[in-house]
Amino acid sequence: MRKRLSIEEYIEGIKSQNRFVLSRAITLVESELASDNALASELIEALLPLTGNSIRIGITGVPGVGKSTFIEAFGNLVTSLGKKLAVLAIDPSSQRTGGSIMGDKTRMETLGRNPLAFIRPSPAGSSLGGVSRKTRESMLLCEAAGFEVILIETVGVGQSETAVSNMVDFFLLLMLAGAGDELQGIKKGIMEMADAVVITKADGDNAPKAHLAKAEYQSALHLFPPSETGWQAQVLTCSALENKGLQEIWELIMQYQCLLQSNHSFQQKRQAQNIAWMHEVIKQSLENQFYNHFLIKKLIKEKEDSIKEGKQHSVKAAIELLELYANR
Amino acid sequence: MRKRLSIEEYIEGIKSQNRFVLSRAITLVESELASDNALASELIEALLPLTGNSIRIGITGVPGVGKSTFIEAFGNLVTSLGKKLAVLAIDPSSQRTGGSIMGDKTRMETLGRNPLAFIRPSPAGSSLGGVSRKTRESMLLCEAAGFEVILIETVGVGQSETAVSNMVDFFLLLMLAGAGDELQGIKKGIMEMADAVVITKADGDNAPKAHLAKAEYQSALHLFPPSETGWQAQVLTCSALENKGLQEIWELIMQYQCLLQSNHSFQQKRQAQNIAWMHEVIKQSLENQFYNHFLIKKLIKEKEDSIKEGKQHSVKAAIELLELYANR
Repeated sequence: MRKRLSIEEYIEGIKSQNRFVLSRAITLVESELASDNALASELIEALLPLTGNSIRIGITGVPGVGKSTFIEAFGNLVTSLGKKLAVLAIDPSSQRTGGSIMGDKTRMETLGRNPLAFIRPSPAGSSLGGVSRKTRESMLLCEAAGFEVILIETVGVGQSETAVSNMVDFFLLLMLAGAGDELQGIKKGIMEMADAVVITKADGDNAPKAHLAKAEYQSALHLFPPSETGWQAQVLTCSALENKGLQEIWELIMQYQCLLQSNHSFQQKRQAQNIAWMHEVIKQSLENQFYNHFLIKKLIKEKEDSIKEGKQHSVKAAIELLELYANR
Repeated sequence: MRKRLSIEEYIEGIKSQNRFVLSRAITLVESELASDNALASELIEALLPLTGNSIRIGITGVPGVGKSTFIEAFGNLVTSLGKKLAVLAIDPSSQRTGGSIMGDKTRMETLGRNPLAFIRPSPAGSSLGGVSRKTRESMLLCEAAGFEVILIETVGVGQSETAVSNMVDFFLLLMLAGAGDELQGIKKGIMEMADAVVITKADGDNAPKAHLAKAEYQSALHLFPPSETGWQAQVLTCSALENKGLQEIWELIMQYQCLLQSNHSFQQKRQAQNIAWMHEVIKQSLENQFYNHFLIKKLIKEKEDSIKEGKQHSVKAAIELLELYANR
C-alpha cells in the first residue's frame, strides 16, 4: 500500500486539477477503513465550495444494451465540445472482490486516451451509506478537480439505479429495440425514474424497429405524470456505430438543465438530494449497528423462521428484538 | 372511554365472529398508547392461526375516480356470492384529527346495511410501524373474525400506496378515462405496483373514451416486465352505475389467486411481506428513537440548513449527529 497523503496534499492536488492526486483521493473514498472514511469526509467538506459545477448524468441499461459503446461515443462528443468529462461506474458485482466491470475489459479505448476524459470504476462498497457513498463522494472530488460533465454508469438490474437516480441531475435509461423489457431484465420502477429513454443500436436493419420502439415508449411515458420539476421524459434513438443521435441527446440534457434552472428546481433538487443523503447515512448506520450486534445476529434468522411458519406476529417479533437491543 | 376488554374476551369474541368485539379490538389496534399496542400484539399473536384465509385486495385511485361507488358495487357483488367482506380505509388526512374519510360522508349506504359486509375506516397513525401497522393488524383481526375478502382502500396520492401494496395480495388501481395521469394526480411508481388497472365510469358518452384508455394502458403495461409471480398486469373497464365489468374484475382476481397458488408464489409473497413487516417495524423504531431524541431534535434543522447552503458535507453532518447520539 502506498502512503496516504496529508489532507493538505489532497486539497492542493485536487485544486490544481492533478489527476494523480484525484485518483488517490478516490481510492481514499473507496477505502473500507473507518479512519479513511473520516479523512474522506473532512476532505470533501474542505472542497465543498468547489463542487456542484457539473451536470451529473446517470446512465443505466442491462448488459448487452451497448453502454460502453454509448459512453465512449457520447463521451467523445462531449469532450469535442471542449468539456472535461469524468466517467464513474458503479459495479455491483465487484462488492466482494474489489474488481470492476472496467478492469476486466479493454473498453472505452479511445475515450481512455482522450486528454479531457477521466474514467474510473467505483466498486460498490458495503460500508456506511452503501453503494452510493463512494460514488457520490468520488463525484464531488471530480467536480472539485474541474470536471464539467460527470457520467455515472450502472448496470440496470436493481438497487443501484435508485441510488444513482438520487445523486444525479439527469437519469438516462438505455434500451434495446425489439426485446420486451422482460427480456431486457429491467426491474420495475426503473423506467419511471428515467428523464430520457434512449433506444440504442438504431442502425442498419435494426433502425425501423428502433423507431417503432421509440414511438411505443414515448406513448407509454406520456401516460406517466411529469416529474415535480415539470420535465416530461423523452425517448430518443441513437447509433454509436453510425454516430447518430448523440448530439440530440446532449441537446436534450441541455434543455433539461435550462428548464430546471429557469424554474429553480435544479438547485432545489440537489439540495433535497444532499439532505436526503444525510438522512440515508443516518438510517443506514442505525440499521447496521442493530443488525450487526451479536445478539441480533444470533436471533434474527430464528425470528424470520417463526414468522414464515406463522408462529409469530411480525410486530411482536420486532418488539422482542428491539427490547433486547435496548437493554444490551 | 369504554373499559378495555381482557385479552380472553377479545379472543373469544373474535373467534365467535362478534362484530362488536371486532370493532373494539380494532379500536385497541388503533390506539396510540404503548400499553394498548403491546396488548394488540399479544392479541394478534394469539389469533395468528385463524388469520390468512382471505383474499386481500388493495384499491387506490385519486379523489373523484369513484372509489366509494366502485367499492359499494363491487362489495355488493362479492357478498352476493356469499362471501363475507370487510372494507378497511386508510385515511391519511385523519392522522391528526382522528376523523376519517368515511366519517364525513354518507357513502356506501347499501353496503353498510349489508349483513355480510363490515366497513371500518382506519386512521393513519404515526406510531411504531407507521401507516401500515394499524391497517395490517385490523386486517388480521378481520380474518380471524371470519371475513373472506378484505378490501383496503387508500387515496392514490402518495406513500400509503406502497404500504398497502406491501400488505395485500392484489393491488387494484382505479383510473378515469380521458384525463392524463398528470391531471389525476397519480404519483410516479404507483402504476407499476398495480396488478390490475380499472378504468371507471365506462358508461354513456364516456364508454368509448374508457375503451380507448383501456387499450392505451394495456399496451403501456406490456412494456413493463411481469412481476416475479409471473402475473402480467391487466386493464379492465367498469361501470358501477350500469353494473358492468364488476364480475370480470372479480374473476380476474380469482385467476390471479389461482396462478399464484399454483406456482406457490401466493404463500411466498405473504411470507416475504410478513418478514419485511418485522424489519420495517425495527427500522421505523430505530429511526423514531433517533429523531425523537432531544439532542437530535435540537440540531437536525441546523444541519439540514448547513447542507442546503453548501456549508457542510452530508456524510460529515450525519457522522456528527450519530456520534452525539451514541454518546447520549
